[in-house]
Formats: sequence, C-alpha cells, structure tokens
Amino acid sequence: MHILVTNDDGVQAPGLLALAQAMQPLGKVTVFAPDRNWSASGHVKTLERPLRVQETMLVDGTHAFTSDGAPSDCVAIPLLGFVDKVDLVVSGINPYSNIGHDVTYSGTVTAAMEAVIAGVPGIAFSLASQDKPANVPTDYSHAAQVARVVAEKALNEGLSEGVILNVNIPYLSVENIQGYMITRQGLRVYRDALDKRVDPRGRPYYWIGGEQPTGVNEEGTDVGALMAGYVSITPLQLDLTNYKAIDVLKKWEWNK
Amino acid sequence: MHILVTNDDGVQAPGLLALAQAMQPLGKVTVFAPDRNWSASGHVKTLERPLRVQETMLVDGTHAFTSDGAPSDCVAIPLLGFVDKVDLVVSGINPYSNIGHDVTYSGTVTAAMEAVIAGVPGIAFSLASQDKPANVPTDYSHAAQVARVVAEKALNEGLSEGVILNVNIPYLSVENIQGYMITRQGLRVYRDALDKRVDPRGRPYYWIGGEQPTGVNEEGTDVGALMAGYVSITPLQLDLTNYKAIDVLKKWEWNK
Repeated sequence: MHILVTNDDGVQAPGLLALAQAMQPLGKVTVFAPDRNWSASGHVKTLERPLRVQETMLVDGTHAFTSDGAPSDCVAIPLLGFVDKVDLVVSGINPYSNIGHDVTYSGTVTAAMEAVIAGVPGIAFSLASQDKPANVPTDYSHAAQVARVVAEKALNEGLSEGVILNVNIPYLSVENIQGYMITRQGLRVYRDALDKRVDPRGRPYYWIGGEQPTGVNEEGTDVGALMAGYVSITPLQLDLTNYKAIDVLKKWEWNK
Repeated sequence: MHILVTNDDGVQAPGLLALAQAMQPLGKVTVFAPDRNWSASGHVKTLERPLRVQETMLVDGTHAFTSDGAPSDCVAIPLLGFVDKVDLVVSGINPYSNIGHDVTYSGTVTAAMEAVIAGVPGIAFSLASQDKPANVPTDYSHAAQVARVVAEKALNEGLSEGVILNVNIPYLSVENIQGYMITRQGLRVYRDALDKRVDPRGRPYYWIGGEQPTGVNEEGTDVGALMAGYVSITPLQLDLTNYKAIDVLKKWEWNK
C-alpha cells in the first residue's frame, strides 16, 4: 500500500510528523505538504502560476516533498504522476477540530476532498486540542494511534467511491477515549465579531474577531461525539445538492 | 430590501457591475468586493491578519466598498455590522460556469455559503462564457436579466434556511435560453495533467495543466441543463454528510 501524507499547516508541523510516523507500519509512505501554513484556506487549486517542488526532511530524518502550492496542489501533483500510484491520502493531523461548517473552510478536509475527486480514498484527521490549556504543547501521540486504526480499517474494508472520512479526535489519553462513533456533520455556532481599530496613522482597520466558535451538542453529530469523548468519524461527500429544496423550488413558477 | 453584491474576481470585474446594476430595481444595493482576483480560492476566512476597507467607485460611478480580504471576508465584514441589515447576498457574475465539483473550489459559491452560514440567503451566479470564442468580449447583459429574475423570485418566495442557490447561465441571448431548470449537482470530468518544465537556471517547475474540464451530460443535473440551453438552478446545502455511507461504516467493527 502506498499512502500519501499531507496537511494544511505546512511540512514542519508536528501533526504531520505524527501522522507520517503512524502510517509507516501500513505501507510505503510519501510525505508531500505545503511549505507554509494554509489554515482556513479552503479548496484552492493553483492554475495561474507554476509550482516548485523541493525535497526536504522531517525532524525524524525521513524524506518529504514540499511545494509552494496549496494543500490541494500537494495532493494533485503527486496524484497526477509525480509519484507512484497512491492507494490512500491522509491529511493532518490538524491541531484543532474540524466539525460542523468548519469542513467548508478546512484545508485539512479539502486536501482529502481533492484525493476523492481524483478517485483515491481520502481521510482528514483533526485533534480537538483547543480543549487543552494553551500553555501546554500539543501531544499528538494518542491521535496518531487513532489515525493508524482508522487508516488501517479503511484500507482493509475499502472506502466506497466518493466518500471522504472526516475524523475528529478528542484531546484525551487513549484509555479515556470512549470509542469510535460514526456521525453526521453537526452545527457550528460561530461567534465572530467585527473588531474595528485605528492604526498609528489614524486609519481604520478590521479584525474578524469574537469568541471561539461553539457547537450544538446533538447526539449522532461530530460535535456531540467529541463532547462525549468519542472519536468522531463523519463520512462526507462532494455532492452538495439540497435534494429536499429541489421540490420546493420546482413549485415556484419559473417558466412563464 | 437590502442586497449585498460581491464576487471573487475583484471589484473591477465587469460581471460584478452587471450584477449590481441588475439588482438596483429590487432594493438598496451595497457592493463589497475583494480588491483583487481570488478565483479558485475556495472558502477562505482571514483570521490571522487585519483587513482594510476602502471606498471606491464602479465604472458607472456608483459607490462600492473593497477590501484586501477574501470573498468570504467581503461577506462576513458587512454582515457583522459594517453595513445595515442585509436581506440577500448575491455573488458573481462569474465569467465561467461553476458546475459539478467546481462548487467546492469556487469563491463565487463560497461567498454565497458564507452568507447562509450567517443566516442570510445567498445566491451565486455564473455565466458559461467559456463556450464563446475567446477573442469576443464577454457580454453579461442577458446573464444580468436572468440574475434579476432569480433574485426577485428568491426575495418574493423566500429561500428556506440553509439553502444556497447555485445559478449557472448558458452563454445564449435571452430569446435562445430554453428556460429555467431546477437541478442537482452533476459530475465534472477534470482532465488535469502535470506539465513539468525547466527554468533558465535548469531547475524544474510544474504547471497543473491539461485540457478544460468537461462534464457528464446527464438529465436533471447542472451540467445537463447548461448543455441543453437552460439556466441551471441548483440548491446547495452546508451539510456534506454522506448519509448512505453512515450505515456502511457502522458495520465495520470499531469498538472491539
């Protein structure tokens, strides 16, 4: 099995190293990640400029490729033939959870989407480390164990075509994780606020600020699973059609 | 009614002007658009740096706001209170269609998504001008008429909560448009290829190149509607859960 490991936080992020190491026992691992942080970058494809690919090393001395492209580019380039045929793309481990509407912003998730668009299974891994004290460094070791379990399951059982797995891991030790839960996408509650300030030259500027988003703690959702201490595994798809709304819209008199 | 007009091509794009003018008869119009082109930028939210807002003018002399943020920022800032309460956000007119998987990359669509996340109806408009000869300037006049019809319908009938409309307009004169069709998201066929070149200093660089994407011409889809000369109206949602896959995944033995 050939596993491609990428992320949206950049090639030197500790979550990428943890994920790459976790994949080693499952097959051949290729790391191909952006040369800088692309968090909250969405699904970007670079068509207007050429991209460079450099060879580099992770801090454990293993080989990695890095590019000045976006996370999706770091999936597209290897899958377009830069490396041998890939069987699975894993993305992460993102230091913060990607739940609810976050999935539409998340570079971690869209890297896995890019894989699925190209016909290769894709899994996104995120660790809810926002729940730990800010002054403690993030420990990815338990999340890496979870990632290995999920990736191995996906390789053994086979993911259906078009399915992306969005995996969110609670920030708990392995003994304290309650188990795995298959979930649906829940509801995020964003609490953004516009923070207007004035620069030293008297001109206004704006921060999109506000408090950390919360979520609706509902059973069966990614939000609820994380809050209950479970690993949340949400199957996502590329079809965004709202099928219920089709019937409603058809009743509007369009063609008269 | 207060309508916010934005896009991902930048405040000086002719499609934005056409859309803003088309909205004038429907209510008060505020234009707030990025100061540069963000095509294929996905759903970006700028949290790591502050944003500037400038006042500018469209070529018809009407007032507009512009920001150095992404398309989603140009929706978030006004909806967070920079302007009066907004009743509808319209985005576009994108010069190329956004069909099939394009919706996951499209800044035009994600601007409308950002509105819906904030609880305001959002509509994305795209014109399939890739079907015209490249040396002819794009005429947005018929697309603007279509946009007005769709926006007026949405304001009168009321869009259900959480529904984004993704509207694709064929590049035909108003008489030759076959009508309006409510569709589901179709399948794009990407034909990307990796184009390796060597720079004047002998170092390789890469273009994500290849041929223009095509689509599977299936009845009832955005791809099929456009090919048949219809305006395609696809209701989209923010829930990306693949519900069918939930049952399959639950059968895998996770908690043993």
